[in-house]
Amino acid sequence: MALLGLVTAGALASFARLADDAVNAPDIAGRLTLTRMAGGSLTHLDELERAVADRGGDLAAAAAPFLALLGDLDARTTPRDWWERLIRTYIAGGMVIDLQRAMSEGLDGSVRTLAQDALVENGHADYVVRTLGPVIEVDPQLAARLALWGRRVAGEALSLAQNVVRACPFPEGGADDAETAVAALVSAMTGGHARRMGRLSLTA
Amino acid sequence: MALLGLVTAGALASFARLADDAVNAPDIAGRLTLTRMAGGSLTHLDELERAVADRGGDLAAAAAPFLALLGDLDARTTPRDWWERLIRTYIAGGMVIDLQRAMSEGLDGSVRTLAQDALVENGHADYVVRTLGPVIEVDPQLAARLALWGRRVAGEALSLAQNVVRACPFPEGGADDAETAVAALVSAMTGGHARRMGRLSLTA
Repeated sequence: MALLGLVTAGALASFARLADDAVNAPDIAGRLTLTRMAGGSLTHLDELERAVADRGGDLAAAAAPFLALLGDLDARTTPRDWWERLIRTYIAGGMVIDLQRAMSEGLDGSVRTLAQDALVENGHADYVVRTLGPVIEVDPQLAARLALWGRRVAGEALSLAQNVVRACPFPEGGADDAETAVAALVSAMTGGHARRMGRLSLTA
Repeated sequence: MALLGLVTAGALASFARLADDAVNAPDIAGRLTLTRMAGGSLTHLDELERAVADRGGDLAAAAAPFLALLGDLDARTTPRDWWERLIRTYIAGGMVIDLQRAMSEGLDGSVRTLAQDALVENGHADYVVRTLGPVIEVDPQLAARLALWGRRVAGEALSLAQNVVRACPFPEGGADDAETAVAALVSAMTGGHARRMGRLSLTA
């Protein structure tokens, strides 16, 4: 149940972040693209609600603690311009998906399938690489600033992961299991981060 | 084509307004409800894009001028609290739909059908009446403030309508036609406004 709450919170946070990015897009074509991606974040909401209800729960209550943690992440990474905004959503959004995917690995069939289905790529990463990549290539100063900013966002996402694990018993085992699992989580998230920064030729 | 641009801009503006309302909702259940309504604003976007493309146009370019006007409306009606925010979306969203509906009346078959399909109720009005109605009933001071605020929002929506008509030749006829048509438009919008305020027992 906790994981379904986390995935729901992740969808709502991704929706809100992309919707806010859309309004701040420098042109209407970008606004349209990001608006559609935001809408796409909600695709699995009805399924998540049914799955939580089947387990006797309430979607809003299940999502609430994680939504607060995800809101903190956004509040602690206020972008100063459009490029920092693109990087924030790219890095934070990607790492939150890494986190959810890693946490769903250990679960039983139906929840795992639903959680992983809900984490499909929405095309945002490709959009960022396509629009920001060429700009970074010709502006080393911007590249340096965004590399620093990417590390800052990644640091906040790793703090978030620790808070999520604290709020969401993971896995259901002893302290040794938990330690190993958290190490695997951090490794999945930092690996994903390095890969994403690499796609933009930025140092992770 | 201009009307398809207006309807697209209306959908994008409604999406952005509801997404912003969702993040500001006082509880997670409200956030979920408003997030879903925001997502619902995009239902007809693909159809609108096809219809504009069929006419040799580009959706973003068609929507751009109206999106700027709708953004002005939002910028000129910044809510000071949650209740003003609910009223802003209720009144402005409703009047923009009244405007689009009235403007689509005079059009030919397929555009008219598409435009009117895209203007379906998303349940926001009922949501506002359900959540705000009981609060207003026991707080005459709040009711007075919101009545004033509703008039302010309605005034801005009527200014918007004049700017839209200026940007979107309507109808395709002489100056006399235009004057009659604009009068019908204002009458449809003020009628809708009075009805919406009435549902909350507020003076229009």
